[in-house]
Amino acid sequence: MEVFMDAKELDQSSLLIDETLYTTANGYLGIRACFEEGYPEQFKSIRGSYINGFYDEIDIVYGENAYGFPQHAQKMLNVIDPQGIEIHIDDERFSYGSGTVHSTFRELDVEKGYALRKVEWESSKGHRLEIGIKRMASFHTLELFTIDYTVKSLNFSGRIEVKSTLDGNVKNYTDSTDPRVASGHEKMLLVTSTGVHESVGSITAKTMRSELVLVASMSHSVEMKYLSTKDTVIGSYVTTIGAGDSFNFVKYVTYTDSIRHEDLLEKNIEINKEVRSKGVAFYYREQQNYLDEFWNYALVDIKGDKAAEEALHYSTYQLMASVGKDKHCQLPAKGLTGEGYEGHYFWDTEIYAVPMMTLTKPDIARSLLAFRYSTLDSARERARTLGHLRGAKIPWRTIAGSECSGYFPAGTAQYHINADVAYAAIQYYLVTKDLKSFLEFAFELLLETARLWIEVGHYSKDGQFKIDAVTGPDEYTAIVNNNYYTNAMAKYHLLWTHTIAGLLAENHPSEMKKLSERLDLTKEELLGLRRASDKMYLPYKHDENLCLQDDSFYDKKDWDLENTPKENHPLLLHYHPLTIYRHKVLKQADTVLAHLLLDNESEEYLKASYDYYEKYTTHDSSLSPCIYSMMAARIGDTEKAYSYFVKTLRLDLDNLHHNTKDGLHLANAGGAYMGIVYGFGGLRIKSDGIHLSPVLPSKWESYQFRFRYQESCVRIYVGDSIRIETDAPVRLVVYGMDIVVKGKMEVDRVR
Amino acid sequence: MEVFMDAKELDQSSLLIDETLYTTANGYLGIRACFEEGYPEQFKSIRGSYINGFYDEIDIVYGENAYGFPQHAQKMLNVIDPQGIEIHIDDERFSYGSGTVHSTFRELDVEKGYALRKVEWESSKGHRLEIGIKRMASFHTLELFTIDYTVKSLNFSGRIEVKSTLDGNVKNYTDSTDPRVASGHEKMLLVTSTGVHESVGSITAKTMRSELVLVASMSHSVEMKYLSTKDTVIGSYVTTIGAGDSFNFVKYVTYTDSIRHEDLLEKNIEINKEVRSKGVAFYYREQQNYLDEFWNYALVDIKGDKAAEEALHYSTYQLMASVGKDKHCQLPAKGLTGEGYEGHYFWDTEIYAVPMMTLTKPDIARSLLAFRYSTLDSARERARTLGHLRGAKIPWRTIAGSECSGYFPAGTAQYHINADVAYAAIQYYLVTKDLKSFLEFAFELLLETARLWIEVGHYSKDGQFKIDAVTGPDEYTAIVNNNYYTNAMAKYHLLWTHTIAGLLAENHPSEMKKLSERLDLTKEELLGLRRASDKMYLPYKHDENLCLQDDSFYDKKDWDLENTPKENHPLLLHYHPLTIYRHKVLKQADTVLAHLLLDNESEEYLKASYDYYEKYTTHDSSLSPCIYSMMAARIGDTEKAYSYFVKTLRLDLDNLHHNTKDGLHLANAGGAYMGIVYGFGGLRIKSDGIHLSPVLPSKWESYQFRFRYQESCVRIYVGDSIRIETDAPVRLVVYGMDIVVKGKMEVDRVR
Repeated sequence: MEVFMDAKELDQSSLLIDETLYTTANGYLGIRACFEEGYPEQFKSIRGSYINGFYDEIDIVYGENAYGFPQHAQKMLNVIDPQGIEIHIDDERFSYGSGTVHSTFRELDVEKGYALRKVEWESSKGHRLEIGIKRMASFHTLELFTIDYTVKSLNFSGRIEVKSTLDGNVKNYTDSTDPRVASGHEKMLLVTSTGVHESVGSITAKTMRSELVLVASMSHSVEMKYLSTKDTVIGSYVTTIGAGDSFNFVKYVTYTDSIRHEDLLEKNIEINKEVRSKGVAFYYREQQNYLDEFWNYALVDIKGDKAAEEALHYSTYQLMASVGKDKHCQLPAKGLTGEGYEGHYFWDTEIYAVPMMTLTKPDIARSLLAFRYSTLDSARERARTLGHLRGAKIPWRTIAGSECSGYFPAGTAQYHINADVAYAAIQYYLVTKDLKSFLEFAFELLLETARLWIEVGHYSKDGQFKIDAVTGPDEYTAIVNNNYYTNAMAKYHLLWTHTIAGLLAENHPSEMKKLSERLDLTKEELLGLRRASDKMYLPYKHDENLCLQDDSFYDKKDWDLENTPKENHPLLLHYHPLTIYRHKVLKQADTVLAHLLLDNESEEYLKASYDYYEKYTTHDSSLSPCIYSMMAARIGDTEKAYSYFVKTLRLDLDNLHHNTKDGLHLANAGGAYMGIVYGFGGLRIKSDGIHLSPVLPSKWESYQFRFRYQESCVRIYVGDSIRIETDAPVRLVVYGMDIVVKGKMEVDRVR
Repeated sequence: MEVFMDAKELDQSSLLIDETLYTTANGYLGIRACFEEGYPEQFKSIRGSYINGFYDEIDIVYGENAYGFPQHAQKMLNVIDPQGIEIHIDDERFSYGSGTVHSTFRELDVEKGYALRKVEWESSKGHRLEIGIKRMASFHTLELFTIDYTVKSLNFSGRIEVKSTLDGNVKNYTDSTDPRVASGHEKMLLVTSTGVHESVGSITAKTMRSELVLVASMSHSVEMKYLSTKDTVIGSYVTTIGAGDSFNFVKYVTYTDSIRHEDLLEKNIEINKEVRSKGVAFYYREQQNYLDEFWNYALVDIKGDKAAEEALHYSTYQLMASVGKDKHCQLPAKGLTGEGYEGHYFWDTEIYAVPMMTLTKPDIARSLLAFRYSTLDSARERARTLGHLRGAKIPWRTIAGSECSGYFPAGTAQYHINADVAYAAIQYYLVTKDLKSFLEFAFELLLETARLWIEVGHYSKDGQFKIDAVTGPDEYTAIVNNNYYTNAMAKYHLLWTHTIAGLLAENHPSEMKKLSERLDLTKEELLGLRRASDKMYLPYKHDENLCLQDDSFYDKKDWDLENTPKENHPLLLHYHPLTIYRHKVLKQADTVLAHLLLDNESEEYLKASYDYYEKYTTHDSSLSPCIYSMMAARIGDTEKAYSYFVKTLRLDLDNLHHNTKDGLHLANAGGAYMGIVYGFGGLRIKSDGIHLSPVLPSKWESYQFRFRYQESCVRIYVGDSIRIETDAPVRLVVYGMDIVVKGKMEVDRVR
C-alpha cells in the first residue's frame, strides 16, 4: 500500500531519516531500518533496536541542585542488534560501498505489516544480484522479529556465502548539542554470555544499573554454522547458485526480558524454536489478520488526495505499531523508532494516542491507562516529595514510573498531566462504557490524580478555586498562575471523578463500598472534589471574548514573530528561556487545546481565542499544528484546517522539524488521525453521546472514516452528503441534532 | 580587643568553625585558621588559602540544557598552603594528638590586625612547651602572609627541630549534598615547578583550564635548610633550648599571580627578600597604621553591651579584611574565609558591603565598582545572549565577569543586580561627590546597566512601564511580573542615570560630549530613560496601604510557617522550588529592602508593608534579619530592631546557619554595621544630603558611630541626647530638620 522509492546513491541525511521511517515495530520491539549489510565507512547510522520499557538508570546532574529534583532518570536502551546479514560473492561483499547499485526500492506495507527493500546490485567483477529483504516485527508473537532474505542471481553462477549476526556490542546514540537528544551514557548494556544451543544462537545481556536482563536469540530457516564470540553470535551458510536462480532464508530473532519473562534464556529458546517450526508464512498470515481487524476500525479513505491518504495510513500504522501492548510499557515520544527524548513516556500518549486507540483498539487504550496505574505508587511518592499530603503526581517523563525530568519549569511543573491521564480515562469510558475497568483500577487512578488538585490549589478570598505555579502545555510560558488549560481540565477531572464514583456506587454498590474504604474515600471528600470543580476559576477577558492563557499572559510584551528570522526557529534553540517566558509567544496550542478537548465555551469565545492565540503560536512543538487544524475546522475555517492538516501529515515524511532521524513524532501521528475524525469529522465524545459535525475541505471529493463505539463499528462518509452506517443501533448527535442510526442513514452536509 | 577562648580538646564541628572565624585576610589573600601542626588523623579540616580573583574554570552540567545557559563557571581555588610548621622535640611532634594540652587561647586582634594562638603543651615524656603563634595578612604589602612563631620551654632542655612547609599539593573542599557548597572539581591547581633560591623556597603552580599561574615563596627569619619535592618546599631548622628559654622565628610567605604581576617568580622572590629584610616589626607597625585610620571612621561604641560591641568590631573587621582591594577582584560571598558559593561575587557586595566601605574607606568602594566596570564587556555579551540589543547584564554570580549561575530562576533572572550596582555607585556619589570617577568609568557602568531596563521592560497599553519575568531579592518567589523591588530600584537607577548625565554635562561639558559620543548616547535616549523612570509601574494594594511584592504575590496561598517544623528550615533544603514558589513565603527581605534603600513611601505604607511581609519571611537567607532590623527601627519599633540586630551580630559567632565552616556571611557583617548606622542611627543618603533619625534600644546606655562625608569625619553620639561632631561644617537633616554642624552640636533625641 505504501511505496517509497529510494535513491541509488546514499545520502547521509536521508539515510538516517529512512532508518526511522521504515522502522518495523510491534509495540514490544522496534528495529530501525538500517541496512543489514551496513554502510560504507564514512556514513553515520543510528543502528537501533529497542524493547519498550527496557531501560537503564542514569544520573541527572544539575548546575545547582535543589530539594526534590530527580537525581536519576531512566533511559531506553539500544539493545542487541538483530540486523546483521552479509552476502559474500566471489570475494566481494554486497554493499553500497563497492560495485554499482542499479536500482533500489523500499516499501512499508501497512496492510501486510512488513517492510520491503529491493536492490539490484552489480559487483565490481560484474556479477549482478537482485536482493529482496522483508522485515517484520510480529503482532502475533511480540517477541519475534524476522528478516526474510532472498538473493536472485541475474548472471552469476557460483558460491555465495551468508553471514548473519546477532550483536551485543551496542551503544546508545548521543549528541551533546541538542537538548532534545541525550548526551553521554552511551554504553549501558553489557553482554554476560553468548552461546549456541541446537541451531539457536543466544546472547544474554545485563544493564549496568537497573539490573534488567535481556536475552536475544536467532535461528534461521536454513542450517547455519554458528560461532559465538564475547559479544556476538555469527551464523554462516554457504550455497551455490546458478544464473537466474534464487535462494532464500529467514532469520528469526526473538527477545525476552526480565520485566516480562521468567527463565529468560530457556523461554527465549523455546519461543525461537516454536516460531521456526511454524515458519514465517504463519506469522505473515497472523500479521495480516491482526491488521485486517485494525484497519476495519482505523481506515480513513480520502477521495481526491491519494498522497494525503497514504501519508495518513502510514502515520496511523506507525503509531499503532509503536504503542505499548502490555501494562509494562506505554508509548515513547518517538515510539520504538528512535532515541529522541530517551524513550520517555509523556502526556503525548493520553492526549494524542489514546483517542485513536480508544476508537480503534480500545484494549490497547485500556492497557496504556493500566500502565499509569501500575506506576501509581511512584506517582504517590512524587506527590509527597512535592509537599502534597494526598494524591499522586503523574511524572512528566518516565519509563519505569519515576519523574525523569531534569528541568522542572517545563517538566514537573506541568501538573496538567494528571488531568490529561484522567481525560483519557474518561473518554475511554464514554466510548466503551467499560465501568468494570474503573472498578478494577481506573477509578483509583482518577481519584488519586484528582486529589492532587485539592492539594495544589486553594480557595481565594472570594471563594474561587485557584491553581498557582504550574506550567500549561505551552512550554514557552512557564510557572504561571491559573493556566486556563490546567484549570479547565482539572475542573473536568474533578467533576468526572465525582460522577464516576456515583456510577460505581449505583452499579456496583458493594464493590464500590470496599473500594472507597481501601482508598479512604468519604462522601465529604467527594463533595469537596465536586465543589472545587464548581468553584474552579477560569481567567477571561470578556470584553474581547477571550479565554486567557493564564493570569499574566495578556499583559506581556508581544514577540515580534514576523521579524524573527526563520533560522531562529525553534525559538528554544536560539533564545534563553527567560527571553521566551517574558513574551507573548507560544510553543504550542494551550487554551486552544482545552477548547478542543472540552468544547466548553461559546462559539464567540472559541473563535476569538483561536484568532488571538494563533498569531502568537510558533508551532515549535510537533504537538501543535494538528490541534490548530482541528479547532480551525471547529470554528468554521475548513481551508485553514486543511492547511494545518497537511503540515501535520507531512511532518516526518518531509522531516519538517529536522529531527526525524531521532524518531517519528508519534503524538503528531495521533494528531493526524484525529485531524480527520475530530477535525473534519467534528467528533466529540460527551456524556450525552457521540457528536459529529463533518466538514469537507474543498480539495477533497469525499472522505470516510470509521470507529468503534461500544460494540458497534460506526462508518462515516463525508461527501456531498453525510452517510452513516452502523452494525447496531447507535444514537448520535449530528450537527446538534439527535438521531438514531440503525444500519444506514444519509443526512445533508452543512456548509 | 577580641578574645575568644579555645577548648583544650578538639571538637570536629567547632574546629571547622574556628578555622573560619580566625581567618587572617587582607582582601588579596585569605588564610583559614588551621593549626600549623595539623590535627590528629580522625579530624576533618578545610585547610584553605585563597587569592581573591584567582580561579579555575569548570563545566556546568544540566539535567536538560537550554540556549543561553552558562556552560562554564569560575571557581575560587584553594591555593598553595603556607601554614605548615612542625615542632619536633625528643622524637615527638607537637600536636593535639599526642601528649597533653594544658591550656589554649586564641584571639583575633582587630586593632593590630593579627590572629594569635597560644598553647601550653606537655609531651608524652613530660616536656612542657608554651607555643605562641601570631599570623598576619599584611594590609601594607598585600602579597604577604606571616607566621610569627615562638616556642618557650618550661622544663625541657635540648634539641628542638622545626619543619616549615609550603605545600602545593592542595585541593578544594567538596560536599555533594549541600547546594550551597561545591561538588566535584577538587583538584585544579597543578604544581609546575618547585625550587630554592638563596633561602627563598618557591612553588609555581598553574590552573588546569583558566591558564592562570601562581607563585608562592617562603623564607624565614632564621637560616633554614631547604628541600624541595615535586609539590612542596620544606625548610628545616634545629636549635637547642634551655628550660625557661624561648626561641622565635618568622615565616614570610609571599604570593604573586599572573592576573596582577609580571615575571611572577622573580617578582615574588624580590618581594619576599624585601619583606624579610624589613622584618616583621615593620609590617606590624604598618598594619596598626592602616587599622588606626580605618577605625577612625569605622568604629562603633556601644555602652551597656560589651558583647555586642565586640561582635560588631569583629564582623566589621572581617568584612574590611576580606573585601577586594584592587579592580581585579571584589568580595566573595564568604570573603576569603571559606569556599561557600565557590568564591563568587554576588549583589551582596553592592548592597551590603559598599555602603560600609563608602562611609569608611571610599577608595575601596570605588575599587569595588571599578571591578564591575572592568568586567563590563562580559556583561554586555551576556545581555546579547539574553536577547537584549543594548546594555549590559551584570552576572548574578561570577569571579572573572561571566555569568556562573547554573539555576537561572534564582540567578540570571535576578535582573535587579543591575540596579543594585547602580545604587551603590549613586550612593558612592552622594557621599563622596566624586564626579570624576563617573567621568572615568562609573557613568558608563550606570548607563549600560540602565539601558537594560529599556530592553527588558515594555510599556503597557495604559502607558505604564512594566518589567516581566524577573526574580527579586526573595529567592522563594521566582520569575514574576513587576517585582516591586526591581521596578522601584530600576526607577531610581533610570532617574539617576539621567541626573548624573546632567551633572556631567554641566560640570565637564567637553569630556561629557566625548563620552556621550563614545557611548552612542543621545538626548533622546536620555529622555527615554527618564520617561521609563517616570512611568515605572509599581504594584500596590491601596486599601491595605500595601506595596505588593509583585503582580501575583498577594493572591497566593499562605505558607503555614507556624506549623512548619523547625528542622525543615531552611525551606530550600526541604521543599521543592515549586512548592515554595506557589506559596506566600519569603526567603528574605524584598519589598522591605526597597523601602530601606529608597525610603520612597509614606509612613503608613512602610509600616503596613513591613507588618505584612514580616509574617511571611523565614529569614532563611543571612541577608534578611539585618534589613528587618533596620526597617523596624525606621517604623519606630526599636525593640524589634534590636532583636533582629542581635541575630545579625551573632550569626557566625553562634553558627546560626550551621554553615560557618564554609566561611563568614560577609553580607550579614555589612548588615550588622548598617544595623547601627542605617538602623538605629537612621542614616539615609539622599540628594539633599545626610539624613539621620537616631533611636536607642532600651538595653543600651548609648552608642557612637562615625563616618566619612566628603572630606569630613562625622561622629554621632546617641544617648539621652544626640551629639554630633564634625571636622568641617556639614549640613545634615536630623529628624527631618535641616541643621549645619560646625564642630559640635547637641540635639534632643526623639522618643
